[in-house]
Amino acid sequence: MNGAESLIQTLVNQGLEVCFTNPGTSEMHFVAALDEVQGMRCVLCLFEGVASGAAAGYAAVAGKPASTLLHLGPGLGNALANVHNASKGKLPMVNIVGDHATYHLQYDAPLTSDIEGIAGPVSDWVYTSQAPADIARDGAEAVRQAGLGQIATLVLPADVSWGDNPAGAAASVVPASPAAVPEDRLEQAARMLENGKRTAIMLGGRHISQAQGELASRLAQAAGARVMTETFPARVRRGAGSAVIERLPYLAELASAELEGTEQLLLLGAGEPVSFFAYPNVASVLSPADCEILALAGPGDDIDGALKVLAERLGAIGAPVLRELQLPAEPRGALDAGTVAQALAHHLPENAIVVDEGITSGLACFPATAHARAHDWLNLTGGAIGWGLPAAVGAAIAAPQRKVLCLEGDGSAMYTVQALWTMAREQLDVTVVIFNNGKYSVLEVEFARTGARGGKPGPKAASSLAIGTPDMDFQAMATGMGVSATTATSAESFCEQLAAAMATRGPHLIDARIPPLEPNWRTPPPAGTGEC
Amino acid sequence: MNGAESLIQTLVNQGLEVCFTNPGTSEMHFVAALDEVQGMRCVLCLFEGVASGAAAGYAAVAGKPASTLLHLGPGLGNALANVHNASKGKLPMVNIVGDHATYHLQYDAPLTSDIEGIAGPVSDWVYTSQAPADIARDGAEAVRQAGLGQIATLVLPADVSWGDNPAGAAASVVPASPAAVPEDRLEQAARMLENGKRTAIMLGGRHISQAQGELASRLAQAAGARVMTETFPARVRRGAGSAVIERLPYLAELASAELEGTEQLLLLGAGEPVSFFAYPNVASVLSPADCEILALAGPGDDIDGALKVLAERLGAIGAPVLRELQLPAEPRGALDAGTVAQALAHHLPENAIVVDEGITSGLACFPATAHARAHDWLNLTGGAIGWGLPAAVGAAIAAPQRKVLCLEGDGSAMYTVQALWTMAREQLDVTVVIFNNGKYSVLEVEFARTGARGGKPGPKAASSLAIGTPDMDFQAMATGMGVSATTATSAESFCEQLAAAMATRGPHLIDARIPPLEPNWRTPPPAGTGEC
Repeated sequence: MNGAESLIQTLVNQGLEVCFTNPGTSEMHFVAALDEVQGMRCVLCLFEGVASGAAAGYAAVAGKPASTLLHLGPGLGNALANVHNASKGKLPMVNIVGDHATYHLQYDAPLTSDIEGIAGPVSDWVYTSQAPADIARDGAEAVRQAGLGQIATLVLPADVSWGDNPAGAAASVVPASPAAVPEDRLEQAARMLENGKRTAIMLGGRHISQAQGELASRLAQAAGARVMTETFPARVRRGAGSAVIERLPYLAELASAELEGTEQLLLLGAGEPVSFFAYPNVASVLSPADCEILALAGPGDDIDGALKVLAERLGAIGAPVLRELQLPAEPRGALDAGTVAQALAHHLPENAIVVDEGITSGLACFPATAHARAHDWLNLTGGAIGWGLPAAVGAAIAAPQRKVLCLEGDGSAMYTVQALWTMAREQLDVTVVIFNNGKYSVLEVEFARTGARGGKPGPKAASSLAIGTPDMDFQAMATGMGVSATTATSAESFCEQLAAAMATRGPHLIDARIPPLEPNWRTPPPAGTGEC
Repeated sequence: MNGAESLIQTLVNQGLEVCFTNPGTSEMHFVAALDEVQGMRCVLCLFEGVASGAAAGYAAVAGKPASTLLHLGPGLGNALANVHNASKGKLPMVNIVGDHATYHLQYDAPLTSDIEGIAGPVSDWVYTSQAPADIARDGAEAVRQAGLGQIATLVLPADVSWGDNPAGAAASVVPASPAAVPEDRLEQAARMLENGKRTAIMLGGRHISQAQGELASRLAQAAGARVMTETFPARVRRGAGSAVIERLPYLAELASAELEGTEQLLLLGAGEPVSFFAYPNVASVLSPADCEILALAGPGDDIDGALKVLAERLGAIGAPVLRELQLPAEPRGALDAGTVAQALAHHLPENAIVVDEGITSGLACFPATAHARAHDWLNLTGGAIGWGLPAAVGAAIAAPQRKVLCLEGDGSAMYTVQALWTMAREQLDVTVVIFNNGKYSVLEVEFARTGARGGKPGPKAASSLAIGTPDMDFQAMATGMGVSATTATSAESFCEQLAAAMATRGPHLIDARIPPLEPNWRTPPPAGTGEC
């Protein structure tokens, strides 16, 4: 077999099943090899940011990496924002980046690029395979590195791809188990939970599962502690039957208020709570200055194991506090973020996956669905918008039997709108809701928060935050990419369209025409504070 | 004034007039400052790759840099492919990349990123401004660096932007003139041109102007040499009244044949001719092994000056060989790359700017328009597709009185399709022609050339190169972004739509439905060889 075949067989042997691709000439032998090796599903994307975002969504739902196939440095650059997002969420990903043949690099052809240099800032592991005989070893190592919750980027020169590799593929390697939390740290946590101080247990990371939520709830009750999640964990189980867990608000001012008086903070998978951005005269650190913080378990550690040990030591034998099912009525009247949220809560089907890049409008949907049917909620972990539509592609491929609901701001949707085409091509069971308010609403809020120009945009600044001129017709765009689509202008029409989409398999987009958010962030929608 | 105002005023003082923006929270003070400082046009883009591609197109047409405003490392990542393209074309660009406040970086917030690390591989100069008092100096230096035909990336921390800078802006600095070619090199070139060997003069770089073409033509006649351009110079003047100059073909096999027998090669602005990609058993270097190559002038050197000196020394007093105006009739019948090309040649208005990302179909248009009305032709210099639509935005802003004609492959259009919205928003005089053949045609050609799987794609590979399922309806997409659009399915309808677009100011898109290219590269369309 040649190098490309050896690599794909190696990836398949390590359990990788999907490759999100946007290939070019230097990847043609890899593409050819997809017909020679069985077991790798190839999902074509029209832009590399769709491929990497899909891999991020896939990893969050499948709990294992997908691979991407990218074309030299520029292709990797196009993918970079969503690789960043995955990296911040500690989601595993294996990027295969084709390069010129090794002997061709010296000639500085137009696409010659410093791939390792571009990959480095967003990768935990970067390596350029040097020979066809090495590629099996290198591919297996890439998957091992990714399995640690990391970004592995393997550069594949064209001659390594097309060269002969008689040694064949690497056999399956059992992935490493998550590291157990050391006893001394568990002991310290137990002492903190027993000392009567005001304590918050903060969960975060790749996947706050049903079981993890229940364990944390039991532990928190036994210890008299609060339990909450970081603002944007990659994936959290919620809705009816899930444990009652708060969420740290996004706005630094509200988050600080929420943590006021907290004397101890135990972090499991979450980082220390800090402001998303800096603002003049606003603290970067959200916890009180005298709060004792214990990083009990990192996102790659055995969080469930740590919770189990602590629950046992604290005699946390009570039942977890679980949410009841409470479905609101269908909304009536004007369509806005609130009525959209109410409709979602009413119609969300059992075990759906919600991909939330609704930005300001998404903030309204989160608390509204706390008592909806049980579901998973996926968050943007790295703050780089343009993740939602691609992540929905990946989530739907990872879980073909589950409905995926993608909440998208109009502004964020436009970064990677090409993802709609892949939804149509693969006939993915995704319903996209576009919150079309013609604004970068979050930036109006942020403009006020930064205090720039006294918080009041001038004409040029206001224009830079307004994307409703010209109007964006997402129904037309989606239809143009093969996705059935409708436009909703009232709560009634939205409900009707959403109900139809929930009852039908396959991609559908609803262009929800809503009014812009009131930009005064000091009176955020009730949704701004975060119950999970 | 604050740091942001100081920076913008400094940029304006150095002659920068346009900023292509896609801002986020960390850039809010920069956005606010656009209302406090006069003279900077702010063009909002829905994706950073549109901003950088527009800056590239602007630079090619305006002959000076624009600035971009980007949001931290991920925003720069989104811009990276078109920064790469500009860099390869030696086109000047000033990227302003907002960052967290300096004191906030230590907290590793979600958008914290290694901006300098990401910028490095595609920038000639990268610097992070450290204090508001430094920003005027740093901004002026960024423009100076860009003025050398380089990519300058200035990282602007939020607190540098919002902090007070009583020193104000930097005064105007006169940009450096292009470096004169050293006398010894001119003397060597003169000797080579006089020695009777078979010699080719190859032009390239940022701008092969009318005057430069004429000088080269006169010199070539006097010396009995050929004159040609590199395959993808950033900008070349052509059509009726321009000098007759050949173009080096794209396909390595054809380019090598074209250069066979060449004993001497003089490079002015062009690099040594090498194959775009490597292929098994195909030479990377396109010139004969025994060809003497003289890099007479780099893209930043005074190419016109060198040509003048040589023309004088060789007594090149004859008139240049100029093209006659020869307009073909309007085509009739089936619509394909050939009839589209013929229609373009017929209808292209005087002094139009053609932005060519037509890929395989663009190859047909180039020779067909050699005798059309005089125009400028912009090429993709770095091979990273997704440049065309943004570059057309930038070209139209640089030259508002000229018609811009953007030739786009369906595949390449989808990388940065959001550029259409900016065309509508700014009411730019751009006509976009989409060669909609439902294929990555060039990759079918390249698949055969690489010899992968004997040159015949299997079912998965073939599917990876086919983008017609689902069908992409560019009329719907363009309309959805506010651009008027039509679909052409015959030569007659295409001509009618093109004539109407040429007669009307403002953006229009024609979705030209053409059959896929025959993927046998060994019989490329006659257009594959390149007369310029």
